[in-house]
Amino acid sequence: METRYPVKGLYVWLPHGLQLRNHVLAIIRRFLEQAEHREVLFPLLIPENLFKKEAEHIRGFENEVYWVTHGGRDKLDVKLALRPTSETSIYPMFALWIRSHADLPIKIYQVVNIFRYETKMTKPMIRLREVTTFKEAHTAHVKREEAEAQVQEAVQIYKRFFDELGVPYVVTKRPPWDTFAGAEYSLAFDTLAPDGRTLQVGTVHNLGQNFAKVYDLKYETPSGKHHHVYQTCYGISERVIAAVVMAHGDDIGLCLPPNIAPIQVVIVPIPYKAKEAPVGQIATVIKNELAAAGLRVHVDERDLRPGNKFYYWERRGVPLRLEIGPEDVKKNQVTAVRRDTGEKQAIAREVLETKVKQLLGRITSDLNDRAWKLFHESVKSASDMGTVKRMMEKRGGIARVPWCGEEACGKALEEQTDGDLLGEEFDGTIPTEVCPICSKKAKANVLIARTY
Amino acid sequence: METRYPVKGLYVWLPHGLQLRNHVLAIIRRFLEQAEHREVLFPLLIPENLFKKEAEHIRGFENEVYWVTHGGRDKLDVKLALRPTSETSIYPMFALWIRSHADLPIKIYQVVNIFRYETKMTKPMIRLREVTTFKEAHTAHVKREEAEAQVQEAVQIYKRFFDELGVPYVVTKRPPWDTFAGAEYSLAFDTLAPDGRTLQVGTVHNLGQNFAKVYDLKYETPSGKHHHVYQTCYGISERVIAAVVMAHGDDIGLCLPPNIAPIQVVIVPIPYKAKEAPVGQIATVIKNELAAAGLRVHVDERDLRPGNKFYYWERRGVPLRLEIGPEDVKKNQVTAVRRDTGEKQAIAREVLETKVKQLLGRITSDLNDRAWKLFHESVKSASDMGTVKRMMEKRGGIARVPWCGEEACGKALEEQTDGDLLGEEFDGTIPTEVCPICSKKAKANVLIARTY
Repeated sequence: METRYPVKGLYVWLPHGLQLRNHVLAIIRRFLEQAEHREVLFPLLIPENLFKKEAEHIRGFENEVYWVTHGGRDKLDVKLALRPTSETSIYPMFALWIRSHADLPIKIYQVVNIFRYETKMTKPMIRLREVTTFKEAHTAHVKREEAEAQVQEAVQIYKRFFDELGVPYVVTKRPPWDTFAGAEYSLAFDTLAPDGRTLQVGTVHNLGQNFAKVYDLKYETPSGKHHHVYQTCYGISERVIAAVVMAHGDDIGLCLPPNIAPIQVVIVPIPYKAKEAPVGQIATVIKNELAAAGLRVHVDERDLRPGNKFYYWERRGVPLRLEIGPEDVKKNQVTAVRRDTGEKQAIAREVLETKVKQLLGRITSDLNDRAWKLFHESVKSASDMGTVKRMMEKRGGIARVPWCGEEACGKALEEQTDGDLLGEEFDGTIPTEVCPICSKKAKANVLIARTY
Repeated sequence: METRYPVKGLYVWLPHGLQLRNHVLAIIRRFLEQAEHREVLFPLLIPENLFKKEAEHIRGFENEVYWVTHGGRDKLDVKLALRPTSETSIYPMFALWIRSHADLPIKIYQVVNIFRYETKMTKPMIRLREVTTFKEAHTAHVKREEAEAQVQEAVQIYKRFFDELGVPYVVTKRPPWDTFAGAEYSLAFDTLAPDGRTLQVGTVHNLGQNFAKVYDLKYETPSGKHHHVYQTCYGISERVIAAVVMAHGDDIGLCLPPNIAPIQVVIVPIPYKAKEAPVGQIATVIKNELAAAGLRVHVDERDLRPGNKFYYWERRGVPLRLEIGPEDVKKNQVTAVRRDTGEKQAIAREVLETKVKQLLGRITSDLNDRAWKLFHESVKSASDMGTVKRMMEKRGGIARVPWCGEEACGKALEEQTDGDLLGEEFDGTIPTEVCPICSKKAKANVLIARTY
């Protein structure tokens, strides 16, 4: 990513990063399409009157919306908001599309750029003024239970998605004071940065009938009555890519899971005196062989020392390197080096394709296991305030704390520990301990962490 | 496309249209990547000071740029332009990337949304305030000749691209008064709408060193000198999709070339009394067979009359329909119907895959031939003013007119005929006639048309 663009919070995607992004997007698109979501594309600009219809929603966004006020030399009659999210542009169109129960459910999504006037410190992929990659899904349903089921489906899709990326997560129900503006409740996925702070990487909102009432989304029942629809929406952004980088990267640089790596296998020929030709030829043959097997392969033929090439591709996170040197040619083999472990092994030419695929599979599951292991070690049960405080002080991960469910106690937990309440664990067990603030019986475990 | 979005010039891509768009984009991306262009993604917002550096360029755009002046409740210190095109955001970054001749050439492209404050009548895909789909490429080179060669490469890429879509075109060098703001010269691709007006669908600009001097793009030669680079840029937009629709569509609706059709083959089972099961089963078997062969197939299992289904898919331009009725089951065949000609034919089950692929290939070349034939008939040589005037009056296509090359005569041609001068024919022959305005020897043929 080029970080020197001369506006705070705006960055440039360079080719390798953009390819990574596109492989990640291909996965979520596939999962959404499999679950009958259809892709659409709405305008960026939202007229002020539409944008300001849902009062709650506006309160949540009014301090961070960019306004277009002029076109050419003219002052616009109606100011235009750069979408910070698209409920207010999409739902007025839903009003035109929904007539009868037969038009429901609607399940759509789009991948767009959105804008937030961030006043805090900005950071590539994490805190942006232009989020270049916002995947937002929006649904409408006949019944409340269908919207509930949709929330569950969305959580399952996101779980599969993060599992595919090897990004560990907790799912929580955000407390009321941290619910999406206009939603009945919000679920969120959080992962952990290496500094011990959590990063929100996905959200799922049950909107109930809030927006439906404001934008007049009604369907006619078979018996001729008119009811408001129930809605959900859910989103992820390029933070997901930051999460991948953080989950698997190390001091050298990127370490990418094979399924999203722009280059999965890099071949480095190691020429030796008077024998350049065979090494180069073999590299090309192997490249074509692996490419034909569906792998993304690159031969590094630059005029650089092998050591420099190794380092170059390691920094870029290429999962597997194949070296072809004099010994390899003699023995009809290649030397494979894993990016994640540095492990070296010789592979006989005749089993190359099978072995490479096996190795990539093993890298995938090892990256996954390692990331989850670290993550699990960072989620700790803590039923007394002292432990929670100490964890927050040294950014020691996520504390699982019994909670009575009262807002006052939740806010006290935040204030006294200097942590943020992520929310009740989704599908969590009911604790036997008491709330450390009021000493009443706990209703749920709540997760607390320092957050990004 | 949903055209009821409540802001002039902004529209919503619906799923079927968006898929069409994405197939079109996949083709141009493939061609650009094959020619060593790399995809990037730059921010939408351009600070006023950067935007206004190139004086010519600004004059070309100042009346149509949208300005963001506020973030939340704050007035911004520096106004931000919504990019109308990205020279002024990309080239300042080139200045950081280019150090030595070894950094050149640079060949990048991006697919982004751009904005124009259009005051004329807007139209979906053709005249937009948000162009949702702008593919712009930008290059930088050591030598003038390399930039010239790049212009040629760009023209070849676009020719292949339009050929792939079956969209006919003329390529001209725009007259100086219609050159891209900041370019030395501009080449353009124009196609013809059914109403006889031309539509500009692609442009290729040789920027010379104009932007390089303004944004200080210099490289160091091997001998330590510093020179400005030479640049080109070239773009297409969703107008290309309008062009596809216009080139092949008819009174029924869309008629899509198979390579970009979201659904290439639709299967319509025609059930008959007490025999629903076999028809449905065969439809599924055939669907899986054709999908496995790499085709985009859909079975229409809705509870509608076959006739309604036929019409539904014809309007959406699906190139080939396969019907499976009682006779077909009996004879172990399917009935194939071409969208473009309505031609019906029985295909034996055992040769289905081969025959379907053959038919799709024939549809592709027939669509292409028909579109080019019509187009060629609409480009007419005319060496006297009367003929040109009459052509423009009845929007009778493109007139090829001998021209002396003088601006005064060019503008007189436009004024007296009420047509627009597209420009000199690219790779055209030198005419033997005289310029109909000044009667001097013509230097080139110029194309004149009513334009969108």
